[in-house]
Amino acid sequence: MKKIAVCPGSFDPVTLGHLDIITRGAKVFDRVIVAVLNNQNKQPLFTVEERLELLREATKELDNVEVDSFGGLLIDYVQEKKAQTIIRGLRAVSDFEYEMQVASINKKLGPEVETFFMMTNNHYSYLSSSIVKEAARYHSDVSDLVPENVAIALKEKFSKGI
Amino acid sequence: MKKIAVCPGSFDPVTLGHLDIITRGAKVFDRVIVAVLNNQNKQPLFTVEERLELLREATKELDNVEVDSFGGLLIDYVQEKKAQTIIRGLRAVSDFEYEMQVASINKKLGPEVETFFMMTNNHYSYLSSSIVKEAARYHSDVSDLVPENVAIALKEKFSKGI
Amino acid sequence: MKKIAVCPGSFDPVTLGHLDIITRGAKVFDRVIVAVLNNQNKQPLFTVEERLELLREATKELDNVEVDSFGGLLIDYVQEKKAQTIIRGLRAVSDFEYEMQVASINKKLGPEVETFFMMTNNHYSYLSSSIVKEAARYHSDVSDLVPENVAIALKEKFSKGI
Amino acid sequence: MKKIAVCPGSFDPVTLGHLDIITRGAKVFDRVIVAVLNNQNKQPLFTVEERLELLREATKELDNVEVDSFGGLLIDYVQEKKAQTIIRGLRAVSDFEYEMQVASINKKLGPEVETFFMMTNNHYSYLSSSIVKEAARYHSDVSDLVPENVAIALKEKFSKGI
Amino acid sequence: MKKIAVCPGSFDPVTLGHLDIITRGAKVFDRVIVAVLNNQNKQPLFTVEERLELLREATKELDNVEVDSFGGLLIDYVQEKKAQTIIRGLRAVSDFEYEMQVASINKKLGPEVETFFMMTNNHYSYLSSSIVKEAARYHSDVSDLVPENVAIALKEKFSKGI
Amino acid sequence: MKKIAVCPGSFDPVTLGHLDIITRGAKVFDRVIVAVLNNQNKQPLFTVEERLELLREATKELDNVEVDSFGGLLIDYVQEKKAQTIIRGLRAVSDFEYEMQVASINKKLGPEVETFFMMTNNHYSYLSSSIVKEAARYHSDVSDLVPENVAIALKEKFSKGI
Repeated sequence: MKKIAVCPGSFDPVTLGHLDIITRGAKVFDRVIVAVLNNQNKQPLFTVEERLELLREATKELDNVEVDSFGGLLIDYVQEKKAQTIIRGLRAVSDFEYEMQVASINKKLGPEVETFFMMTNNHYSYLSSSIVKEAARYHSDVSDLVPENVAIALKEKFSKGI
Repeated sequence: MKKIAVCPGSFDPVTLGHLDIITRGAKVFDRVIVAVLNNQNKQPLFTVEERLELLREATKELDNVEVDSFGGLLIDYVQEKKAQTIIRGLRAVSDFEYEMQVASINKKLGPEVETFFMMTNNHYSYLSSSIVKEAARYHSDVSDLVPENVAIALKEKFSKGI
Repeated sequence: MKKIAVCPGSFDPVTLGHLDIITRGAKVFDRVIVAVLNNQNKQPLFTVEERLELLREATKELDNVEVDSFGGLLIDYVQEKKAQTIIRGLRAVSDFEYEMQVASINKKLGPEVETFFMMTNNHYSYLSSSIVKEAARYHSDVSDLVPENVAIALKEKFSKGI
Repeated sequence: MKKIAVCPGSFDPVTLGHLDIITRGAKVFDRVIVAVLNNQNKQPLFTVEERLELLREATKELDNVEVDSFGGLLIDYVQEKKAQTIIRGLRAVSDFEYEMQVASINKKLGPEVETFFMMTNNHYSYLSSSIVKEAARYHSDVSDLVPENVAIALKEKFSKGI
Repeated sequence: MKKIAVCPGSFDPVTLGHLDIITRGAKVFDRVIVAVLNNQNKQPLFTVEERLELLREATKELDNVEVDSFGGLLIDYVQEKKAQTIIRGLRAVSDFEYEMQVASINKKLGPEVETFFMMTNNHYSYLSSSIVKEAARYHSDVSDLVPENVAIALKEKFSKGI
Repeated sequence: MKKIAVCPGSFDPVTLGHLDIITRGAKVFDRVIVAVLNNQNKQPLFTVEERLELLREATKELDNVEVDSFGGLLIDYVQEKKAQTIIRGLRAVSDFEYEMQVASINKKLGPEVETFFMMTNNHYSYLSSSIVKEAARYHSDVSDLVPENVAIALKEKFSKGI
């Protein structure tokens, strides 16, 4: 049986921290589906389509990784994709508690699906999409923090004076 | 390629919390090696041989689980077994920080090995081998906390007035 | 002197986790007042009146529990009710820190009132009103997570396509 | 029915932080039993008899407080005393997690007993018996940290060159 | 070389907790610049000009403290001021994690600037500008929590029925 | 007035994490005294003299850093050295809480001394002297984790079969 993992997130935009988790997950699982949450309540910087495109470009050398989006409950999406596992990166204690809640409710709603957590690489433990956006908004150099195509997309967004 | 995971611990003795992690890990990986740490600095209640025997009995219905012991560094053992992953259960924030340290150093010493964390089932989140031993020492009923064979072994240990 | 405790919260809606705290509090105190915070800044799913009604139904078999609502500062309400204690459930470290702040300021504003914390039952440690609403919004089965009357009310709310 | 609470601890020696919790607990409960744990594995500074004597002197003006010692499991002692509650002070997140574990196992072993947590007064949030002993060992002034009789007892202990 | 430290914050309004950090920082550094963040996304109670004025009055006896405001990234402001350090108060674990993230990104963006953290005085560990505003809104006495001029300004704001 | 900081620790042995904190502290303060705690209760791997020697070698290019040892209370040592500040590195939440306790008691015992905390560089956030000793004991390569002279000293210690 193929081992399939879903790696969900907002990815607004994908950072090198996310990419590290995806790459390491892709070494263990036969197939990794990176799933962009289409959350209509939040005001994203990039549209879902832009985020998918940035992710596809950033993961194009990872053969067993594909990129998709979903709405609704994560567990419904995971079951629909016939994945056995969810993978999530953990950076900090505050992540941990929230993720523990989410993993518990997902275990309740879909007991056959396992959530696996991976520790974010120390180099990226301070990284978040919000911090990247904040830095890019004021024209700081973020090329160490995000894939190259994302750095270009951020520069473009903020040059338009958003 | 077979997906092999090592699940290390002291298991002095194995609890239902440990068993839950092992069982769930065995659904995702092709083979799970439960590895008892032979730590000569600590004073265990059960010898390594007893702990191996209790684990073998408790996991005998899980076909892809085997039980072993190791000394020295975990990462050396994992590499020797040609496993790609280490699995660990997380119960609480204090676990999390210690485990993050250990996972980081293991990543440093063996970059090709991934550590995956699983959240302990809520029913067992308060459980630890020490708490079980403390309760059993004063003849409390621990049959809800450990596999049946372990409950019997604990009763025997403490009836001898240790 | 009667021991009176106030158990404050948003209860939007009451969950089995809340009900567990209320029930256990009612065994220790002579009278427990469940007090729904009427917070005009938030957009609740249920109105204060609906929340009071759901709570009254869910606690109707607890003779020494009554249900009320309040605006303004909790400590003013507690003093007006001549209660000596506030009871709060704790689930996680993040709860703990916020609650510690609130208990400290309440101690400052009303030094004669004590706040007592109870650990949420492990079975409900992942539960929150928001997680229940999120699950119900996508028509997941929440009957294990909330009292029966709340499950019905949630179904009704979301069938209207809110 | 009388509301009886047990307040357990090592009290080696009692600090002003402990005394604050005992005093506040005594305002809410009809009777508070301060219970010194007789833990034979640890090397205390004061014997159980000395600790009882220091506590009796320090609480002598609190009419509904009594001082006792116990061995074995706390829950057995609480049940024997027909108390309905255990009270514990919380200072920090690390306290919280340990206490949550202990409260959970006590709930399992004695479901009719409730554990209530009180936040330690901010003035004493850094205080612990070990820190007091460390300061007293090097002849620092600890009269702000412990009851007067304990300050005298500490001076005496360490003047003997222990 | 003069040791210059920037102490950034929203200060909406300044509390005795902030003032304690500023005062202690001013004893160690040759010059402390209290820098009010001009964050256009938030709805403050006091305008930036009012906050500057309240801070100037509250720190007028500290000769080496000056008060300023900034927009954009903190690190750009610190570099422009030729300061070597940022000082921040820490109250709780949740502060700690957020501050660790911010300090890391600032280290990345401006490696020559150091962030120093100071523990908030225990007396003020529960204090935050939001809690003060909430209490003042309902006409609680906040004169123990904020400098005198701020207590007056709060009374004035809320008497206008905001 | 010269700004003097004491940087205390066990340094058994000094790691690159410690060295990073010392180096960054030396950029802000006029003089940094690295102070090895002579704790007679613990069984160190290196004697105080060896630890001093390893530190002196590792910090020899930092002109304003000196190396010393102390017994007794840290605050007494800091006052004796006429230092105004203590600097400590923080890695994790568990560090944070312990350090907050220690800083509070030191504030109590010596109110004129300030403790400043620095975040450990992300690259070293998993590092501790114990983890280095554990790795070196089993002949893992620790040359990325400690200064070169310490790597040699560790190899020597463990080649003797300790």
